This record gives sequence, structure tokens and C-alpha cells, in this order.
Amino acid sequence: MHFVDIVALAALLQFFVFAALVGRARGKYGVKAPAITGHEMFERALRVQMNTLELLMLFVPALYIAARYWPAGYVAACGAVFLVGRVLYQQAYMSDPGKRGPGFLLSIAPCFALIVAGLVGAVLAALKGSA
Amino acid sequence: MHFVDIVALAALLQFFVFAALVGRARGKYGVKAPAITGHEMFERALRVQMNTLELLMLFVPALYIAARYWPAGYVAACGAVFLVGRVLYQQAYMSDPGKRGPGFLLSIAPCFALIVAGLVGAVLAALKGSA
Amino acid sequence: MHFVDIVALAALLQFFVFAALVGRARGKYGVKAPAITGHEMFERALRVQMNTLELLMLFVPALYIAARYWPAGYVAACGAVFLVGRVLYQQAYMSDPGKRGPGFLLSIAPCFALIVAGLVGAVLAALKGSA
Repeated sequence: MHFVDIVALAALLQFFVFAALVGRARGKYGVKAPAITGHEMFERALRVQMNTLELLMLFVPALYIAARYWPAGYVAACGAVFLVGRVLYQQAYMSDPGKRGPGFLLSIAPCFALIVAGLVGAVLAALKGSA
Repeated sequence: MHFVDIVALAALLQFFVFAALVGRARGKYGVKAPAITGHEMFERALRVQMNTLELLMLFVPALYIAARYWPAGYVAACGAVFLVGRVLYQQAYMSDPGKRGPGFLLSIAPCFALIVAGLVGAVLAALKGSA
Repeated sequence: MHFVDIVALAALLQFFVFAALVGRARGKYGVKAPAITGHEMFERALRVQMNTLELLMLFVPALYIAARYWPAGYVAACGAVFLVGRVLYQQAYMSDPGKRGPGFLLSIAPCFALIVAGLVGAVLAALKGSA
């Protein structure tokens, strides 16, 4: 389970970095709080952070629920794919939003896989419990 | 506990669907990333997703904390109300934002109930532990 | 562990209050849904809520992961600092966004500390497990 914790914390740290990049872009491009528009590059950084926030809301719970029903090694490996996908997404979005597709897929697919794995595990366990 | 997991994962899947609807609206109404305004229907879909994200941040932790102190069946039932409330909210918001009230109440009330239930359970347990 | 649950639920309740303040500002300053701009004070309230949402995504998982590896009392105390930091942040942001720094630091620092504490604990445990 320690590897699952490490992957989860790495995802939190990654989000922390994306949030820091938004703060830096706020200063660099002169977008004063509470404004959230005003410069394309700031808006891109903010969208990367917000999209990562949305995915983390799926990723973290799904990671731990899946880990109740499946071997922690597989679950952690699935989580590692998410981390790589997010890096690719961030790089692509900042250079050209139109190219964010592959990184997005590589980070949403592990989330989806973890949710489905968790659902299959929980439903099978519930059926076994009532059998 | 499997039922609590199933309800939590169903809420994640529901959020996944709301996010997909935002993506579809982005294409359908020609709102290019990173813009988050430009067409009323896109903005409604985005608000549904964001509001659901905010509630999930309450719902998922509160669901699991409440489940430590109360029977899993009641907790899962409370979570099922949330799922229904979110469907009503989404339907109402897309047809007329002014009518989003009932669906909102039906999804925020279970969150609030789970938080209060968790607090009561944790405080009672802490008092018993120190008694 | 009950104190960790109480701190987590207090953070959820606090977020609940910040969200309610956004709803009130929506009415008070006449910003009709789905708009998210239109009045400075509404935008400030919304940014407080969104920033708290972002931090909760770090705070809640980090709190519970750290609590697996470190004494619950220290972890809960670290969480209490977060709660205070958020109050200062909210007060400062509403009166003058330029003064939000100290409250922000006092709420992000505990998140960072919990993530690092969790990582150190998980890595040490993984090393010990494979030793």
C-alpha cells in the first residue's frame, strides 16, 4: 500500500506545482487577483490547473477504492501512468492548446480504469457477501 | 462497506459524464480552449460540472468519515439521494438556471447530513475515548 | 484518529460556509447564474471558494495519508493551522486581495508539510518493507 500512498502524494505534489505555475503566470503576465482572464498564457496555466483539479477529484478516491479490491502494485502502476499523462498534458497545453489531446487521454484513461476496476471489485464483493 | 464504495464510484462516474458534456458543449458551441465563456449553454454545462466538483469535495470525504461511525446502509442511502439530486440539478440548470434550486437542495442536503453525522460520531467517539 | 476526522470535517464545513458566501454575494451583487464575473466583491468571494477547493484537494488526502505514518495528534494540530490560515485568507481577500499573502501561506504550509510528512513516512515504510 505504501506505493499507492507515494503515487497519490506525487499527484498532489504535481498539482501543487501546477498551482504555483498559475501564481507565477499571474505575476508574469500582470493578471491581478481576482481576475481570471486577461492573458492567454495565464489562462492556459489556469486551465491546466483546473483540469488537473477535476481529474484529481476522480483519481484520488478511485485509486484508494481500487486498491481495496486489486493488488496495490497494479493500482500504483495505473496511477503512475496518470502522472506521466499530466506532464504531457501540461507541456502540450502551454505550447498549443489544440495539442492537449494525447496527454489528456493518458491521464483520463487511468482514472476511468481505476473507477471501473473499483466498481467491478465492489460489485463482485457485494454479490459474494450476499451469496 | 461495498455499497458505500459503489455509491462513491457512481458519483465519480456521474462527474465524469458532466465533464464529458462540457467537452461536447465546447465543440458544439465553438468555445475554443482556454476560453471558458462565449456561449450560454457551454457556460451552463461548465457551471454544472464545477458545482458538482465543489460538492464532491464535500461528499466523498464526508461519506467515508460518516461510514466509520454509522451503519453503511444508511450512509449509502444518503449518498444515493445525492446522486438523484445531481441529476435533477443538471437537468434543471440546462433547461433554466433559475430552476436549479430543488436539485441543488437535494444534493447539498445529503452532504450536510453526512458532515453533521460524521461530526457527531467523531465527537462522541473522542469523548468516550477520553472518558 | 477521531481528532483527525473532526479537523477534516471542520475543513469541509468551512468550505461549505465559503460556498454559501458566494451564493449570498451572487444575490447581493446581482450576478446571475451562469455568469461568474460582473462584480468585484462576488469575484473575490468566488476566488476564496475556488482557492479553498484547490487546497482541500491537497489537504484532505494528505491529512489522512500523513495520519497513517505519524501520530494523529500532530497531524490534527497541523490541520488546525490550516483552518486558521483559511479564515485569515478569507478575511484578507474580502477586504483587500493584495493582503491575502499571510493567510495563504498559513494554509498552504500545513498542506505542504502534510504531503512531505506523508511522503517521508511512505518511503521509509516501503524501504523497511523491502529490507
